[in-house]
Amino acid sequence: MKQINIGILGCGTVGSGTARILLEKQKLISDRTGINVHLKSIADIDPTRGKDLPLADGVMTTDAGAVVDDPEIQIIVELIGGKTLAKELITRAIDNGKHIVTANKALLSAHGNTLFPLAAQRGVDLAYEASVGGCMPIIKSIRESLVGNAIGSIRGILNGTCNYILSRMTAEGCAFDEVLADAQANGFAEADPTLDVDGFDAAHKLAILNAIAFGMTINLEDVYVEGIRRITPMDIEFAADFGYTVKLLAISKQTNGAVEARVHPTMISHDNILASVNGSLNAVTVSGDCVENVLLYGHGAGKMPTASAVVSDIVDIARNLVFGAPGRIPALAYRPEAIRTIPVLPIDRLHTRYYLRFTAENQPGVLSKIAGALGSHNISIKSVNQKGRFYGDHTPLVMMTYKACEADMKKALADIAALHIVADDPIVVRIEEDNGGL
Amino acid sequence: MKQINIGILGCGTVGSGTARILLEKQKLISDRTGINVHLKSIADIDPTRGKDLPLADGVMTTDAGAVVDDPEIQIIVELIGGKTLAKELITRAIDNGKHIVTANKALLSAHGNTLFPLAAQRGVDLAYEASVGGCMPIIKSIRESLVGNAIGSIRGILNGTCNYILSRMTAEGCAFDEVLADAQANGFAEADPTLDVDGFDAAHKLAILNAIAFGMTINLEDVYVEGIRRITPMDIEFAADFGYTVKLLAISKQTNGAVEARVHPTMISHDNILASVNGSLNAVTVSGDCVENVLLYGHGAGKMPTASAVVSDIVDIARNLVFGAPGRIPALAYRPEAIRTIPVLPIDRLHTRYYLRFTAENQPGVLSKIAGALGSHNISIKSVNQKGRFYGDHTPLVMMTYKACEADMKKALADIAALHIVADDPIVVRIEEDNGGL
Repeated sequence: MKQINIGILGCGTVGSGTARILLEKQKLISDRTGINVHLKSIADIDPTRGKDLPLADGVMTTDAGAVVDDPEIQIIVELIGGKTLAKELITRAIDNGKHIVTANKALLSAHGNTLFPLAAQRGVDLAYEASVGGCMPIIKSIRESLVGNAIGSIRGILNGTCNYILSRMTAEGCAFDEVLADAQANGFAEADPTLDVDGFDAAHKLAILNAIAFGMTINLEDVYVEGIRRITPMDIEFAADFGYTVKLLAISKQTNGAVEARVHPTMISHDNILASVNGSLNAVTVSGDCVENVLLYGHGAGKMPTASAVVSDIVDIARNLVFGAPGRIPALAYRPEAIRTIPVLPIDRLHTRYYLRFTAENQPGVLSKIAGALGSHNISIKSVNQKGRFYGDHTPLVMMTYKACEADMKKALADIAALHIVADDPIVVRIEEDNGGL
Repeated sequence: MKQINIGILGCGTVGSGTARILLEKQKLISDRTGINVHLKSIADIDPTRGKDLPLADGVMTTDAGAVVDDPEIQIIVELIGGKTLAKELITRAIDNGKHIVTANKALLSAHGNTLFPLAAQRGVDLAYEASVGGCMPIIKSIRESLVGNAIGSIRGILNGTCNYILSRMTAEGCAFDEVLADAQANGFAEADPTLDVDGFDAAHKLAILNAIAFGMTINLEDVYVEGIRRITPMDIEFAADFGYTVKLLAISKQTNGAVEARVHPTMISHDNILASVNGSLNAVTVSGDCVENVLLYGHGAGKMPTASAVVSDIVDIARNLVFGAPGRIPALAYRPEAIRTIPVLPIDRLHTRYYLRFTAENQPGVLSKIAGALGSHNISIKSVNQKGRFYGDHTPLVMMTYKACEADMKKALADIAALHIVADDPIVVRIEEDNGGL
């Protein structure tokens, strides 16, 4: 039986999970593949991190460079995270002719346009299933299973922390800060939650998915990003009254020669299957012109689910090595020569429906003035909800609009602000009507 | 650019859809793969069937044998269906060293134990993604993405016709016969619906999934099968009162050295994501020890969704051919030497919860007698619903039991029948409590 030697960089959560699968599932994997996928080295600055793993002597090391330079190792698995050391080690490993597996969405969305061509030139595979959607095989599905489809759109719940927070806010009526603090205490959110709750993590993932779905260069800078900090239980309740659920969605759509790419709190109909995805789970719907829509659903993060995706990449590459077929599938789904720069539609040109919540002064004519300002910018109101609640001199005034252009909405909101009849900035949540038939 | 020549057998719904993708997406596919996947021939006894396709002269033929024997064709796509001619042509194509793509679940579940080893001996790939779940990449996901997981269970809505009928019965309160007739009139059900509504089609699919999930020989004969003909709107309504939805589920679970494998109407909690899968859509949840659960959801049948899966298989094999890597992934997910015969748990040894509806005579003591008979066979009742409805001298009496053994249930029901206090056979529906956390 052929043996493929693996070196893992980083023995944190996902690194130790990956090592555990390779060690404990060696027979299962060889029964399935006929390959002895062998963990030769695992490097971490803190060598005690491997102490719970049944490692043979010499497998754990603090010398990541030696792992990357080891001529017996064919596949380097980068699970350090971050964009500096990880990039350095991956680049060095590629130079050494090693194949790469990584879960590092931040790195790939920032430097993928350098790293993927580098790997292609050197003739090595660079696999990253675990970087998006944890154990859900979203990369493989788009790249291989939908190969005969022109992809139309992607709609995903791609950040477990946000979904966990919004689910609890919905179920319990708690405020964002309260749920975040509790999530941090329970390990469901990072001490610095910015990357998650401000939408950047989902944007990293969406930038990667867009590249493989549409055959475009990775374009993180132009993804519109808005987090969930301003969402309140009141908005969630109003949304429910209208039949909607609030989710942080990552959305991209192929339009005329451009791609919409945006991450923001979104109201979706209760009937949309994504509305049923709760807690830290992830789900993503991909539309293709042959399949209509396919949805994947599962754990988008966590030790073993993510490690499972890493191992699927390791095995894919090991099979390529044994069959002499590295490069069998272009890393970014398209041949490098076929990848184009496709513009991202500026958010100002988005047409969508909106939920607006104003904190209106309790004086006559406010509704008419707001409606007038919206109307003068071509924004039609579909429904209004003014619950009989008062906060001092103010009352929440909620409107759901028909489709409108974002630039018009901005102008209308500026006009409304200038009228001095509302306190605070309004809460603006985009509504996604298309549920893809699922 | 390398060219791979394709021959399609059968220009029916899926065959013409596959041809259409190959013809219309040639550039997209070559942009993605660097391969010219070329439709060389398509055979059908009725050559007029290709008339809507933009076929070059000589591509359409009535001579399937000539396609299978054509030395320039590397991949044969069998979309004839049935188990006689299809088997003959596939066998001949394998003998000729050609790689095979098929969507024929009936053939594979009946003769896979012969055909797969034949292909392996001849060193050709035999791919069948489209045979289960239409466009959902369930075969690829189990075989490749979950390669590091011991699979625990599969729960799926795998027959679109049954799901369509049950969804409409649920939404509209119509009777089975009425919805079936309407479905037949609208092309959602076959003229002879037996294969679908009696559960056999789902059983074919489950037998294939079990093989790749558990590394077992294909064992269709031992899959327990029960269709949806006896389900009434009344049962669906009672189920809803208890918080359940009725679905035809295909269920398999790895137990101690055996595998549960069964297809039958099943009550699942409204909270279970599978309960939200309506119409002709399919969905399947797979549990693995690393991922917990992954769900795929999409069109399980239909022209273009199924053709999309066929094309993904064609491209997979084309990539293998260009890279000299046929056999890269064992067709049945395990190396032939590692495939074992795993017994299927006899249905009598199943332990599950039950819904029972008796048509009870309106006389005193009936409930107590029925409860007594159940109790004497170790079956405990969790709840009872006796709506105040009367049908002549009878009234429906519904019970939900705690977990019980199927053999005990049969004995208890025989005892109850012997008491002559119920009319007709009771309606018995198994309840699936585990939603896999999804």
